[in-house]
Amino acid sequence: MADTKGLVIVHTGNGKGKTTAALGLLLRAWGNDMKVVMLQFVKSPERASGEHKAAQRLGIEIVPGGAGFVFDPKDTGQHRALAVAQWQEARQRIESDKYDMIILDEFTYPLSFGWIPPEEVFEVLDHRPRRLHVIITGRDAPGALLDYADTAINVVDIKHHFKKGIKAQAGIEI
Amino acid sequence: MADTKGLVIVHTGNGKGKTTAALGLLLRAWGNDMKVVMLQFVKSPERASGEHKAAQRLGIEIVPGGAGFVFDPKDTGQHRALAVAQWQEARQRIESDKYDMIILDEFTYPLSFGWIPPEEVFEVLDHRPRRLHVIITGRDAPGALLDYADTAINVVDIKHHFKKGIKAQAGIEI
Repeated sequence: MADTKGLVIVHTGNGKGKTTAALGLLLRAWGNDMKVVMLQFVKSPERASGEHKAAQRLGIEIVPGGAGFVFDPKDTGQHRALAVAQWQEARQRIESDKYDMIILDEFTYPLSFGWIPPEEVFEVLDHRPRRLHVIITGRDAPGALLDYADTAINVVDIKHHFKKGIKAQAGIEI
Repeated sequence: MADTKGLVIVHTGNGKGKTTAALGLLLRAWGNDMKVVMLQFVKSPERASGEHKAAQRLGIEIVPGGAGFVFDPKDTGQHRALAVAQWQEARQRIESDKYDMIILDEFTYPLSFGWIPPEEVFEVLDHRPRRLHVIITGRDAPGALLDYADTAINVVDIKHHFKKGIKAQAGIEI
């Protein structure tokens, strides 16, 4: 594909569709015989089942990371260490030149918490293989990341069934 | 799944991730061994390749509809007839009780153009199988549809690579 230009795409906002849209890109890429990997920076076991089962069947690797949901920006312990380790893993994969698309799921959190310097991330992205798309999801994407990205979308809840007391549903959240 | 409650979910807004997020739901559902179909109300051949190839390999049916992109609400000819025919097809599938998830891609257009009465759609959705999720995508979702939906997200472009002159890329749009 001579005109392939790897893009940096950010899915941010308070809505529920950010990771879901990344999964859609993953599927489209897989359909195009592209090599894809997803690295998760926040473990969300409740959500995992449908996408993990699907990825396994498709032969797509999803690399879990984090230890439970990260809410506390002052936590400098285990969560931070796990996020930094996951970034090192991501960095290796980006530099490996083995992939056409790498999804960094919920990566905005360690960035906005100041655990990983955005400049280091941009440096790695600057030198990535030309064809490599990098998709970053998560709330509160830092302004510097939005500036850096080629494309950014904001996903906002208009209304959500959780507020009506409906539980997580197979095929939707799980 | 005893607690399954089929949801009506709308992905609207001017952003590029609406159909992509529906594909993510399709993938998650497929991972959960759910039976899924996508009916497209607007033909978009440029976008089709990755998702069509993926769907074919997964054994998921995507039913194309429409004849080129529909821009003109005053067009009462071919576009309208095709959209109405596609809605009849969708209605049959909804009533067939064969599916766990039905995606009506770009269905907001025939609704907002007044080609298909929302009341008729709500009537069909009211009587759908209890487990059936219905996902509707497209810009300018009518207020009545947002009121009816269990969940609705608004996807807004913050920035987009098309504006930088970068063409549609495999794995992203196609």
